[in-house]
Amino acid sequence: MSSELLHDSGLIANPASTATLSDADADSLIAELALRGRAAQRVLAGMGEQVKADALRHAAAALRAAAPRVLAENARDLDKGRANGLAPAMLDRLKLDDARLDSIASALEAVANLPDPVGQVIDQRTVPTGLELSRVRVPIGLIGIIYESRPNVTADAAALCLRSGNAVLLRGGTEAVHSNHAIHAALVAGLEQAGVPADVVQLLPTQDRAAVGGMLRAAGLIDMIVPRGGKGLVARVQADARVPVLAHLDGICHTYVHSAADPVMARSVTLNAKMRRTGICGAMETLLIDASFPEASSVVAGLIDAGCELRGDARAQAIDPRIGKASAEDWDTEYLDSILSVAVVDGPEAALAHIARHSSGHTDAIITGDAAAAERFLTEVDSAIVMVNASTQFADGGEFGLGAEIGIATGRLHARGPVALEGLTTYKWQVRGTGQARA
Amino acid sequence: MSSELLHDSGLIANPASTATLSDADADSLIAELALRGRAAQRVLAGMGEQVKADALRHAAAALRAAAPRVLAENARDLDKGRANGLAPAMLDRLKLDDARLDSIASALEAVANLPDPVGQVIDQRTVPTGLELSRVRVPIGLIGIIYESRPNVTADAAALCLRSGNAVLLRGGTEAVHSNHAIHAALVAGLEQAGVPADVVQLLPTQDRAAVGGMLRAAGLIDMIVPRGGKGLVARVQADARVPVLAHLDGICHTYVHSAADPVMARSVTLNAKMRRTGICGAMETLLIDASFPEASSVVAGLIDAGCELRGDARAQAIDPRIGKASAEDWDTEYLDSILSVAVVDGPEAALAHIARHSSGHTDAIITGDAAAAERFLTEVDSAIVMVNASTQFADGGEFGLGAEIGIATGRLHARGPVALEGLTTYKWQVRGTGQARA
Repeated sequence: MSSELLHDSGLIANPASTATLSDADADSLIAELALRGRAAQRVLAGMGEQVKADALRHAAAALRAAAPRVLAENARDLDKGRANGLAPAMLDRLKLDDARLDSIASALEAVANLPDPVGQVIDQRTVPTGLELSRVRVPIGLIGIIYESRPNVTADAAALCLRSGNAVLLRGGTEAVHSNHAIHAALVAGLEQAGVPADVVQLLPTQDRAAVGGMLRAAGLIDMIVPRGGKGLVARVQADARVPVLAHLDGICHTYVHSAADPVMARSVTLNAKMRRTGICGAMETLLIDASFPEASSVVAGLIDAGCELRGDARAQAIDPRIGKASAEDWDTEYLDSILSVAVVDGPEAALAHIARHSSGHTDAIITGDAAAAERFLTEVDSAIVMVNASTQFADGGEFGLGAEIGIATGRLHARGPVALEGLTTYKWQVRGTGQARA
Repeated sequence: MSSELLHDSGLIANPASTATLSDADADSLIAELALRGRAAQRVLAGMGEQVKADALRHAAAALRAAAPRVLAENARDLDKGRANGLAPAMLDRLKLDDARLDSIASALEAVANLPDPVGQVIDQRTVPTGLELSRVRVPIGLIGIIYESRPNVTADAAALCLRSGNAVLLRGGTEAVHSNHAIHAALVAGLEQAGVPADVVQLLPTQDRAAVGGMLRAAGLIDMIVPRGGKGLVARVQADARVPVLAHLDGICHTYVHSAADPVMARSVTLNAKMRRTGICGAMETLLIDASFPEASSVVAGLIDAGCELRGDARAQAIDPRIGKASAEDWDTEYLDSILSVAVVDGPEAALAHIARHSSGHTDAIITGDAAAAERFLTEVDSAIVMVNASTQFADGGEFGLGAEIGIATGRLHARGPVALEGLTTYKWQVRGTGQARA
């Protein structure tokens, strides 16, 4: 992998972040950090649930106590960002204030209160030889997090990893480097008050781009990488990583309004699915309206009146003159904006075929009052999340009752959909015998 | 990836197997096969449990009916293998006869009788918004199997993939090419009798090495690759694959005889762990004897008298003059032979440290009558399988009551230890609402 890695991804907004390390030096650095993290993780694994929860509560308190320092460091990042011409949206993502810091600390406390998945017995059986088998959840090991400008990820991701017994190696965006170091210092101070080794939560000591390449190559040293950020970042990490990656690239989410949909529900749910927040991965990007649904014009008008631009096929355009013409690419586009593609389909078969072809496997929904149509949709749509009569914007670990999420995964192995503490564990088989030899 | 892939792995025993396809042509071939497999998998997914079981029973019957043809094709492979100077052990692995064919057919029937994991509800919850959430097991999609000379893998792997609702793309060893095609033809005939699309089980139509590279590069088309074969094959697949790989490389399994071990049990279990079959991944490769265990000489003599060569550290050598001297590499060696490394350790701490350093994370065992020592070992040893008072040779999906196994995994994500039908599934989230919009 060349040191050009992530060169043009959103990760590197700051041109001052260059690659000066050789790949070999980057690999050595990552190996050293990873071995320290893994050693700390083994110590943590022996400490039990209460210590992990206490460490997060201490970290929250330390972060609150460090507020003046964190905000001062954040101001340095903001000044630099303004000087470098960062866009206002980027500056807003970067910005911390008392309220945001307090909510980061509260999130640490909330994660401390989540049930610990480690030690859970997934299943148990006694086999004819008399061996007693249990599958027991254990931490994965060392998790790498590669993220962009939001400094809250430093705390959020660290908390989820620690709560599930893992060590974490963090690599945040260069724009937020001072904020991240200040938050990290507070977290570590809290951990140490609980007796947890500081190396459980490490922040890369350099912003050198080559070190990111080292993380992606570190198979066997880092067990899993979670990229948190825009599509450019995720695509590069997925393309270049030799370490397993937990992520989703696109959220091209569909809502299919079935012929038997309640018209009022269809209008309110589609409006929410698109317009509540247009920039999140669970936002609807394509609306499929059954040709037999009688109230299409009301659904479409609800969206247009709320300020959404609609791009449709010819039959959709016939519903409302304000609907523009969709191009072939629209059906595969994640707008993350007040834009929606709309197609009219002839029944469930056509809706399922459209979704099979264009969905990114994130979240797809049907609106229907017909139970059989609902069950068919739930069974046949092969996405991480399939919904009946609900807004796709519910695709979220918090809304799913998971407490928090490290991300949403559309890969097919390990964990799928919103990934929280359980997705940060693996299991081992414990076998208890009485001297059995195999025949 | 160059076409040199797998050049010197055990996969290519036959020098006639060359790479003449360009990488681009190999990628096109694999893409075509994968898309056919994926389309067939979607049809299979709609067919229900009974059809899958019936298809395997028809396949078993078809295989029995095709016995003369399969054995004739196997004879061609054997003739060619002899002409090419294949080792007797290799020829034995390749060889089929009526009894072996019958046992392959019986294995298909056994898999047909296993409970279907697809559709199982892993968990269910209703969240405060009133949404009802279920996590439901679904097939992974298309599995690639890359294997060596044993033709039974053609049937065994296909059966496990089909039973769990997946399509499979098989690439067997060149030495077994005629046998594999004959078995594959019988399987497909059976599937078609049950109405299952033939493309659910595909065998690569070429032995061209470049096609293997195409499989390994086919991220997004093949969901998971399972290499079945020797270390050379597994190492190459792990090193080069861009598709997730389920595998283990080494089985460096330890047995720790604790000070409180029952001496008779220690002798019988270690003898079985090493000598029952020396060539399997669950065979013990290192014996750790506690310095406080009083009957070390009996345990050691049991192994030596059974024909095992022992290589020890200085303290182990002092137990019996027949113990040779271990080199530093011995502690990291998977002998797969009647050879064992032996070390004397000072208590559980030292045993755990040795295992943490040298275990391959496959299977490690303690022999002890002390419950606390047993629980500590089960908790602290970070291997896929940890055992108390049992032979490491029990590390096997059949012995674990899983019915069969596609392999044993030492990776930390997705599935760990013996992997059977459940490990060939993923899950999706089904969300049932009543018109909820997100606040």
